[in-house]
Amino acid sequence: MRFNVASRLAYEVRDRAVFILNIEAAALRHQTILSETLKLTPAVALERHDLAGGTRLVRVVVEPGRFEVAYDATVELAMLDADPSHVSETPVAELPLEVVPFLNPSRYCQSDQLGRFAYHQFGGLPPGHERVTAICNWIYDNVEYLSGSTNSETSAYDTMVQRAGVCRDFAHLGIAFCRALSIPSRFASSYAWQLDPPDFHAVFECYLDGAWYVFDPTRKAALQGLVRIGVGRDAADAAFATIYGDAMMTDLQVSIAPLDEVTQAAPTLRAVGIA
Amino acid sequence: MRFNVASRLAYEVRDRAVFILNIEAAALRHQTILSETLKLTPAVALERHDLAGGTRLVRVVVEPGRFEVAYDATVELAMLDADPSHVSETPVAELPLEVVPFLNPSRYCQSDQLGRFAYHQFGGLPPGHERVTAICNWIYDNVEYLSGSTNSETSAYDTMVQRAGVCRDFAHLGIAFCRALSIPSRFASSYAWQLDPPDFHAVFECYLDGAWYVFDPTRKAALQGLVRIGVGRDAADAAFATIYGDAMMTDLQVSIAPLDEVTQAAPTLRAVGIA
Amino acid sequence: MRFNVASRLAYEVRDRAVFILNIEAAALRHQTILSETLKLTPAVALERHDLAGGTRLVRVVVEPGRFEVAYDATVELAMLDADPSHVSETPVAELPLEVVPFLNPSRYCQSDQLGRFAYHQFGGLPPGHERVTAICNWIYDNVEYLSGSTNSETSAYDTMVQRAGVCRDFAHLGIAFCRALSIPSRFASSYAWQLDPPDFHAVFECYLDGAWYVFDPTRKAALQGLVRIGVGRDAADAAFATIYGDAMMTDLQVSIAPLDEVTQAAPTLRAVGIA
Amino acid sequence: MRFNVASRLAYEVRDRAVFILNIEAAALRHQTILSETLKLTPAVALERHDLAGGTRLVRVVVEPGRFEVAYDATVELAMLDADPSHVSETPVAELPLEVVPFLNPSRYCQSDQLGRFAYHQFGGLPPGHERVTAICNWIYDNVEYLSGSTNSETSAYDTMVQRAGVCRDFAHLGIAFCRALSIPSRFASSYAWQLDPPDFHAVFECYLDGAWYVFDPTRKAALQGLVRIGVGRDAADAAFATIYGDAMMTDLQVSIAPLDEVTQAAPTLRAVGIA
Repeated sequence: MRFNVASRLAYEVRDRAVFILNIEAAALRHQTILSETLKLTPAVALERHDLAGGTRLVRVVVEPGRFEVAYDATVELAMLDADPSHVSETPVAELPLEVVPFLNPSRYCQSDQLGRFAYHQFGGLPPGHERVTAICNWIYDNVEYLSGSTNSETSAYDTMVQRAGVCRDFAHLGIAFCRALSIPSRFASSYAWQLDPPDFHAVFECYLDGAWYVFDPTRKAALQGLVRIGVGRDAADAAFATIYGDAMMTDLQVSIAPLDEVTQAAPTLRAVGIA
Repeated sequence: MRFNVASRLAYEVRDRAVFILNIEAAALRHQTILSETLKLTPAVALERHDLAGGTRLVRVVVEPGRFEVAYDATVELAMLDADPSHVSETPVAELPLEVVPFLNPSRYCQSDQLGRFAYHQFGGLPPGHERVTAICNWIYDNVEYLSGSTNSETSAYDTMVQRAGVCRDFAHLGIAFCRALSIPSRFASSYAWQLDPPDFHAVFECYLDGAWYVFDPTRKAALQGLVRIGVGRDAADAAFATIYGDAMMTDLQVSIAPLDEVTQAAPTLRAVGIA
Repeated sequence: MRFNVASRLAYEVRDRAVFILNIEAAALRHQTILSETLKLTPAVALERHDLAGGTRLVRVVVEPGRFEVAYDATVELAMLDADPSHVSETPVAELPLEVVPFLNPSRYCQSDQLGRFAYHQFGGLPPGHERVTAICNWIYDNVEYLSGSTNSETSAYDTMVQRAGVCRDFAHLGIAFCRALSIPSRFASSYAWQLDPPDFHAVFECYLDGAWYVFDPTRKAALQGLVRIGVGRDAADAAFATIYGDAMMTDLQVSIAPLDEVTQAAPTLRAVGIA
Repeated sequence: MRFNVASRLAYEVRDRAVFILNIEAAALRHQTILSETLKLTPAVALERHDLAGGTRLVRVVVEPGRFEVAYDATVELAMLDADPSHVSETPVAELPLEVVPFLNPSRYCQSDQLGRFAYHQFGGLPPGHERVTAICNWIYDNVEYLSGSTNSETSAYDTMVQRAGVCRDFAHLGIAFCRALSIPSRFASSYAWQLDPPDFHAVFECYLDGAWYVFDPTRKAALQGLVRIGVGRDAADAAFATIYGDAMMTDLQVSIAPLDEVTQAAPTLRAVGIA
């Protein structure tokens, strides 16, 4: 299934600034970038680097003045589409060892501190995709989606107490629970089809049955319409722009639209993954 | 109902130290001290002060060497004994204003941060003694009693995440939930009948229907056999000994025994209070 | 020295609400209320209670609609005015025992966790008023006054790390350091002469040499022009309005003006206290 | 310079357990493993994986009973040895982009929250190796090395307040400060020559002038005698053993000895790096 994605960022740069941008579709096995353009105004030189996990970084150095970024791409998602009841967890003894670091706690996902709760609440459920779905359901039922209730310092530890947050907080809590249960889990920023209002969206992925399956405990986007951008330990690894210098964002627009008719099953009925 | 209570503390004082002791039965309306002795060895001079809430402080200045404290008392508890379904919450509009500060968050009871959860989980229950019992049941079911799992810095915020603790942590969490629901709540250290092994015990009290009713989410002690010692905002107000100087505790023994045959109903069936 | 103080609060009450107001000048020994009026519009019935520490609470139950509070008072401050080098700390062995609870940690002042730093940084300084001034100087030099940088959940623990805050954060940090050094310390909200822009202001007081001396690590107000309102453990005890129900503040105005010519020495040169 | 390193681990495995071991010398450019043996008793099958950063993971599945691990290696360190005043910081505009993720906050290194302090305290110092040394000096002067004062949940945020810790806490604080100042920084566990008593040791490395230079704010080990084991974001990435299952460590012995005469300058006078 193909999607057109686009983002427009505008900044007022007050003093020479370095931007590390992460808005391009990630380089992942089942996510094929059919075409893309990145237009910078003014047309400053850029440097690129693709991180091991698929995240694609762009660096530019920008002089004072207005700075605009326009990204457009057509991306094909050849996603896994499995019966959730057939997608099992992989025991730690059998995990690919390169996946093991995604069991470690991270800045916003203190899986080491949430372990007792995770075991108590979810430890008795049958392992597999459906257990992670149960985790997402718990988050959906127990955390209120509330814009402005959290900030860039809020972690899963806080959300567990305060029970409010936005998409990144929901994802962080899901990641923390999964890692506590020995399910490798990572954060993904994305272009999210059907997200209303349109914006960058945060979801998480679990390594199950040989692939990374995606979960959205906010239930705000369609799982088969998520074009991944930044993939990492948590939101600290997936900022769409990190600025070293003095610049203020003046505009942000994000869009995604399907090019094909939607034929896949509803995300709540099917497991959707990406390798 | 009458109880004999006793405590024995021993310290090795290495450098002149000031002790603020809080081991005597509190001065409360329904808790009558029939007799008591406090023996200090060596027999240093002591000063006393009873705080407004009933907590009785003793201060001694101790020179280097062994220091022993022996307290013995006979205390009569003329406790309230009501049908829980008849013990209602008092709306804030009708609370005695001197009780209102027990709605404020405190060091270990961040009721301001636990409010959303408390409302979500307990806000829909019928108000009254039975709602606080439901809170205690939740704590009992969701927090593991685990010696050594916490320390003197652990707060309700932490326990909400980590789901393990000892009696003071259970009490702090109960207090935080109750205050979040506008139920005045305070901490009480106590001599606790049937606590095994014997030790000082922490419980909490809620102001309901004109009196302070006691709750023990650990279910480790008999509610009708709690001789209150320190009563305050939280454990910060109820340390059995605060030492300014260099001393090490070498022994601690606590005991309580009923002098009368037990006739009261089981605590889980009756509301037990003290004014 | 006499001051006129005034405050105007306006609320849009959307559903029956209980207000606990704390805007009247506190009942303190050296703070004499020469006259005062509290006008409520609509003229709902009010209840009063003076807490042991001097804080005066007012409770009103308000029906939906606009609700206005107007407080005016003339207050005489007969403040202590001492040479700071003559104002000593009182050893714990000699403190009035009713003051001892102000050594305990509280919601926003985790003196138990800040102790090592406090000893390291301030433990070697000569005890007394000048040591607390050194603490205030450290806070002034090391914490940035930055409106909007903190919220109602921010504690001294956070401020120690994040190094930004507003007056209540500055006061909380000062209190935490002082308690860690065994100096009884409390929070005071106030009408603050020379504060620009006018607002309620938070300062802290230490029990030194038999009286409560006031400190303002923000250096924003004149110490001899502080009319105390709420006095307590920390900001949790001194909210100017606590609302149970659904109401939104639509206006807040605070003012203070001296009635007499200012004759006292500058606050940085003199110790200013209130018993 | 060559070192013999060795470690002996013993466990009582009570139920089938998966071990992820990380005790072998890391695969780094300037750290050559001349020979090594890893002996497991019983001789269970093992799997290996070298992470991108050089950390070498070993996985074994162990049945109940005694389990012993013996690692011996001879490692040559061909370390950079530069005049610290010539080792500069690399501006973000010029950093290799693969190094940029080491600017992100991590589980134990909340550089996002420590930024204001880091700028205030170290922002004015001339950039370069000597600035990081100043950071280490500050940590050494302001944090007490105190065994048992922290646990596996303690982060730089806590250490900033509590001012006590062990080597991993010292390293985490150094990393957090450096990242806040836009200096890429990572954690390294190590065999540490001259560490007394011998143990695994935690240090940190900064990317300066094209290489990773090592720092030890505890001053407990010789910088030119550190054989790196696990290299990652923070201690979460460098546990010497992570156990999934039920096993208890019964013995741990660590040793390191130089094979060559020491000829390098003292670490406090020279910058020591590894690429």
